[in-house]
Amino acid sequence: MSFNSFGHLFRFSTWGESHGPAIGALVDGCPPGLPLCEADIQPFLDKRRPGTSKFTTQRREPDEVRILSGVFEGRTTGTPISLMIENVDQRSKDYSEVAKAYRPGHADYAYDAKYGFRDYRGGGRSSARETASRVAAGAVARLVIPEVAILGYVSAIGGDAIDPANFDAAEIGNNPFFCPDAAAAARWEKIVDEARLDGSSVGAVVECIATGVPAGWGAPLYAKLDAELASAMMSINAVKGVEIGDGFAAAALRGEQNADPMRPGADGVPEFLANHAGGIAGGIATGQPVHVRVAFKPTSSILIPVETVTRADEQRRREATEIVTKGRHDPCVGIRGVPVVEAMMALVLADQKLMHRGQCG
Amino acid sequence: MSFNSFGHLFRFSTWGESHGPAIGALVDGCPPGLPLCEADIQPFLDKRRPGTSKFTTQRREPDEVRILSGVFEGRTTGTPISLMIENVDQRSKDYSEVAKAYRPGHADYAYDAKYGFRDYRGGGRSSARETASRVAAGAVARLVIPEVAILGYVSAIGGDAIDPANFDAAEIGNNPFFCPDAAAAARWEKIVDEARLDGSSVGAVVECIATGVPAGWGAPLYAKLDAELASAMMSINAVKGVEIGDGFAAAALRGEQNADPMRPGADGVPEFLANHAGGIAGGIATGQPVHVRVAFKPTSSILIPVETVTRADEQRRREATEIVTKGRHDPCVGIRGVPVVEAMMALVLADQKLMHRGQCG
Amino acid sequence: MSFNSFGHLFRFSTWGESHGPAIGALVDGCPPGLPLCEADIQPFLDKRRPGTSKFTTQRREPDEVRILSGVFEGRTTGTPISLMIENVDQRSKDYSEVAKAYRPGHADYAYDAKYGFRDYRGGGRSSARETASRVAAGAVARLVIPEVAILGYVSAIGGDAIDPANFDAAEIGNNPFFCPDAAAAARWEKIVDEARLDGSSVGAVVECIATGVPAGWGAPLYAKLDAELASAMMSINAVKGVEIGDGFAAAALRGEQNADPMRPGADGVPEFLANHAGGIAGGIATGQPVHVRVAFKPTSSILIPVETVTRADEQRRREATEIVTKGRHDPCVGIRGVPVVEAMMALVLADQKLMHRGQCG
Amino acid sequence: MSFNSFGHLFRFSTWGESHGPAIGALVDGCPPGLPLCEADIQPFLDKRRPGTSKFTTQRREPDEVRILSGVFEGRTTGTPISLMIENVDQRSKDYSEVAKAYRPGHADYAYDAKYGFRDYRGGGRSSARETASRVAAGAVARLVIPEVAILGYVSAIGGDAIDPANFDAAEIGNNPFFCPDAAAAARWEKIVDEARLDGSSVGAVVECIATGVPAGWGAPLYAKLDAELASAMMSINAVKGVEIGDGFAAAALRGEQNADPMRPGADGVPEFLANHAGGIAGGIATGQPVHVRVAFKPTSSILIPVETVTRADEQRRREATEIVTKGRHDPCVGIRGVPVVEAMMALVLADQKLMHRGQCG
Repeated sequence: MSFNSFGHLFRFSTWGESHGPAIGALVDGCPPGLPLCEADIQPFLDKRRPGTSKFTTQRREPDEVRILSGVFEGRTTGTPISLMIENVDQRSKDYSEVAKAYRPGHADYAYDAKYGFRDYRGGGRSSARETASRVAAGAVARLVIPEVAILGYVSAIGGDAIDPANFDAAEIGNNPFFCPDAAAAARWEKIVDEARLDGSSVGAVVECIATGVPAGWGAPLYAKLDAELASAMMSINAVKGVEIGDGFAAAALRGEQNADPMRPGADGVPEFLANHAGGIAGGIATGQPVHVRVAFKPTSSILIPVETVTRADEQRRREATEIVTKGRHDPCVGIRGVPVVEAMMALVLADQKLMHRGQCG
Repeated sequence: MSFNSFGHLFRFSTWGESHGPAIGALVDGCPPGLPLCEADIQPFLDKRRPGTSKFTTQRREPDEVRILSGVFEGRTTGTPISLMIENVDQRSKDYSEVAKAYRPGHADYAYDAKYGFRDYRGGGRSSARETASRVAAGAVARLVIPEVAILGYVSAIGGDAIDPANFDAAEIGNNPFFCPDAAAAARWEKIVDEARLDGSSVGAVVECIATGVPAGWGAPLYAKLDAELASAMMSINAVKGVEIGDGFAAAALRGEQNADPMRPGADGVPEFLANHAGGIAGGIATGQPVHVRVAFKPTSSILIPVETVTRADEQRRREATEIVTKGRHDPCVGIRGVPVVEAMMALVLADQKLMHRGQCG
Repeated sequence: MSFNSFGHLFRFSTWGESHGPAIGALVDGCPPGLPLCEADIQPFLDKRRPGTSKFTTQRREPDEVRILSGVFEGRTTGTPISLMIENVDQRSKDYSEVAKAYRPGHADYAYDAKYGFRDYRGGGRSSARETASRVAAGAVARLVIPEVAILGYVSAIGGDAIDPANFDAAEIGNNPFFCPDAAAAARWEKIVDEARLDGSSVGAVVECIATGVPAGWGAPLYAKLDAELASAMMSINAVKGVEIGDGFAAAALRGEQNADPMRPGADGVPEFLANHAGGIAGGIATGQPVHVRVAFKPTSSILIPVETVTRADEQRRREATEIVTKGRHDPCVGIRGVPVVEAMMALVLADQKLMHRGQCG
Repeated sequence: MSFNSFGHLFRFSTWGESHGPAIGALVDGCPPGLPLCEADIQPFLDKRRPGTSKFTTQRREPDEVRILSGVFEGRTTGTPISLMIENVDQRSKDYSEVAKAYRPGHADYAYDAKYGFRDYRGGGRSSARETASRVAAGAVARLVIPEVAILGYVSAIGGDAIDPANFDAAEIGNNPFFCPDAAAAARWEKIVDEARLDGSSVGAVVECIATGVPAGWGAPLYAKLDAELASAMMSINAVKGVEIGDGFAAAALRGEQNADPMRPGADGVPEFLANHAGGIAGGIATGQPVHVRVAFKPTSSILIPVETVTRADEQRRREATEIVTKGRHDPCVGIRGVPVVEAMMALVLADQKLMHRGQCG
């Protein structure tokens, strides 16, 4: 793993800034012979696309992906797949305020501390716009793992969680929140709208379940399936926590409560009576659904003024000031996080499948 | 990151099984000229060592580390540092039960599914014994980051959390639980002892705070400081969740509640008025304390019978059975997780320091 | 190093096929704050550009590079630099012959054996066109190592070598062969022209000298400076041999002939009395000029018929046939190899510089 | 590839100094289920072992390897295999001369320049003793590629080459030079003995041929089979040049001379009429024998005095002096290079096999 790459055998790198000419992903190690065209990628980008409801940023980006290499006569060739998405709606605006003061909760100060300066237009490289590249790469990864079905959804917004008893996967596409609980979706409309009208924002929990992952994918210790998932999810903008299976709830249990008993099942495959482990034991898939929960903080860009400081002048002096982050932003960045979490799940699993096949034939 | 290695410039690999002749760590990329001898490593191993109270496993291992390479005249040479710990107390026992049936919650079934067979003696490679290698490597990593102080502790056992108002770092060494709250330590004694006497086990939450991390360490996106920490922590045996800063609690907040306002501070360094972010923004350290929370599930090895299945025979048939895991085990594996979490913190930070210096001078 | 990437801290990946819409390089890990614009890269691409004399391929490519990310207000930001070069002169032609039979000496058969099919248009990914991406990335690498001067030249064509006594660096730009010996250049004109008119091709030796490399860059053992250079040079299309310093000639010497004696020099830097070692000892730079020699085979694309076989049909049957490679090609691919070898030298040194700084501060 | 590791999926790291307590190799990514015990490794170490004739160093090392992990009930488990060889004959001697002055041709000065100091006992990490670790790892790699036969031999010593017409593989084991030409072996006896008696040394060329490598192993561009081999071979101590197939000779040929024509062969596999390419095209194996040539310089440790300088004192002053390298050394380090070159061939091919299987199934 280098700075802007992820994966081992199925590896992708992303590039591009929020207000540069384009963003993109370079996918390396994809197996040859898989049917691939832009239409296989576009639906996933459309799912993540901004501006589709009042609950997401009003930036208007068509997010049209182009495949620049690695595909011949409609099939992957085994060589690098270069994906590019042009930035269209880089609205001209006055960045002087952001250029001279740091937005708390953003990467502004950290970038300045690291690099000495930063591309402040729309957050530059640290913008959530980068996640479009992941979604494009993730669409390629899905082709590598046809045996796996991936289902992402929002399970809580602003502390208001779905009722598991109401869970209905078919409901997820019926509301702008990727919410599997119609009653919760109705409540969230009010929560998110209030935050939006207040110029504030709100956090969310995204969950993702991968079914069909064969027992054996993964690796003991440092490329553990759960460690890779944790890294993948925590690398998404605004994410502050990751759980596998019962996660922190398991820390409150006793051993016998947390066990996942097994019975003989069909075709020699054990049947599990519970899935506290979230489908992973010792870093390796057990064949049960792989279950991940991801915490998104509330969007840092808000219209409510926050105390901050200016960039240091040449004498290293800073001034106290207040900042409000005008412009277009998501009142709940977790919502559009769903296709991103799904993409990262696909990217990790595609890589683990190839590594497993490489080592264990 | 390969299967059993972690890190980029400061990189370590571990090897060894629970009941093999030895375990070890190979540390590569350590800067030259650092004073290092066995006595710099041993105290950290002693902190993790089994058999020190009735609340940990009764396996008796001296865990004496030997430095086999990479040190000359008491200083690191810049070449690989090979660390070896001999296994002493591999108690001879009858493994026939474990060999033929899977212990739920353990990696037994997953290893068989991946590799076709497994070293079942004491869990083989998947044993928590591996973490001694990490602790040894972590002691070397600490030498690389003298500017950083690392403090680990247990903040909850079996769902019973410390009271932040009682937090006293000096208390951590006064009880067998690495607990900073004397009142909680007293309660935990009862909780863990009850679990132990019931032949059960109990989960825990470990926290770790690194102070002195300079603003700028870390990397945007896929080698983000938080993503690396998440991967490092999730790679520890029995860990099911990782939070940075407020973690999942942030998902319930509004943007203005979650902001970390700044004021001008001494020497041009901003003073932060809060640390919801846990010291990391955009994957890069902000100069605030880096704060990680880690969920340990209850130890899977318990004396309470659990339903399970046998290994498949040649016709892929399995039988239903029950298993109890006799032998020595930790009633709360999270307790001895404290020095391991600290070691992983040190290992991640040492690597990020060298990478930052490499790229940004 | 993954499939299409090179380097550790300063890392680049290339993508694109000969007749696809574009090719490109993604440069990751570049230090921040370096002045960079397209005009810093273009001259190196122009040096490699096809169609500049009758001694190179007649394909006409402007090879105009665009910087799509990683630069803000004229300086590198520390984030990935995406470089793209559009393919313009993908002359429409009939590929049916190449599609159905293998060109000996080309990667045609090997790609089919590996991937099951191949992009046969102009050699696809295996075309020397890929090297334009390296040259672009190399131009960025040069900014990282301003202390180093890199000089590449052709030292032999078709077995006819320069006379070291005639070596004149100023002469290199005066002829179409990057030849530092005016007399040799005159002879080569005849050699290459004859090969061209015969529909044949001819091999060449390219040398490259880097001066100013500080003693200490490099790494013992598997990321040795010489091992990295060997890998870098051997990865260039048509290269079949790499030598450091005296190379194979050293295998015929005695120890005292091969020694590079030292004397005390200015400022505590030893003065070397010889450079048989080519500036590298134990994988680490000695401070002397780093000297590499690279063998390029004759271009495989020739108009002289060669025996070959057709692609296997569904019954795995092949037919005997003859093939001639029509179309535009370099009669001596080594000539345009000079800027590519220089680029790889720069890319290796930039990476080693950052790694050295990371580990040894 | 990090500092002391090699490979991607089948990856090994080495550690240890010439006069430390032990040396070793850590092999990661080995497939599970392969029969492995010490006796599978020892013969390869014996072939490389010092002190077996007057033509090699008189250091007496039993080179007994121990397997410390990764094997259970006689089979590899898929977890890291830790191999250790204790150093026995670290003859006590006076190192004061080597400690204060640099031996030209050795890594002494370069290590000091890089690390600020060095383990000067027997060359420390830069000693050819490290290659025993590679040979041990290579023995494991061979188990991964049973379809491949690897044959190494010396083809020239001190500029005196074998006569290809006399090539007899059965002869290789009949003389102390791994020479396939009995007449050449007789001449070399005199050449090496003269060098030895003069206190000098002599260079050599080692060749290695791998038959049975399936077409398709390898990777285009930066993990090319030939680039990996070049890196692997150049990383061996004293190596200064690497050729694939015709190597530098190809640079003197015309295209039609260098072509490897094909005819339909049995079972749909083309029959090649020549192998100028050395079994690799476009970085990918063609199914022909993979042929590598490696140049070893004469051993730098000689009894003939060479001009050199002392270590810098605190005022950065150095003194002129002369040095002779007393002690035990190989008069022709290339001879014992044969098992090392074979090991690196096996290690590269094992890795490429797993990577190919991972990506292309």
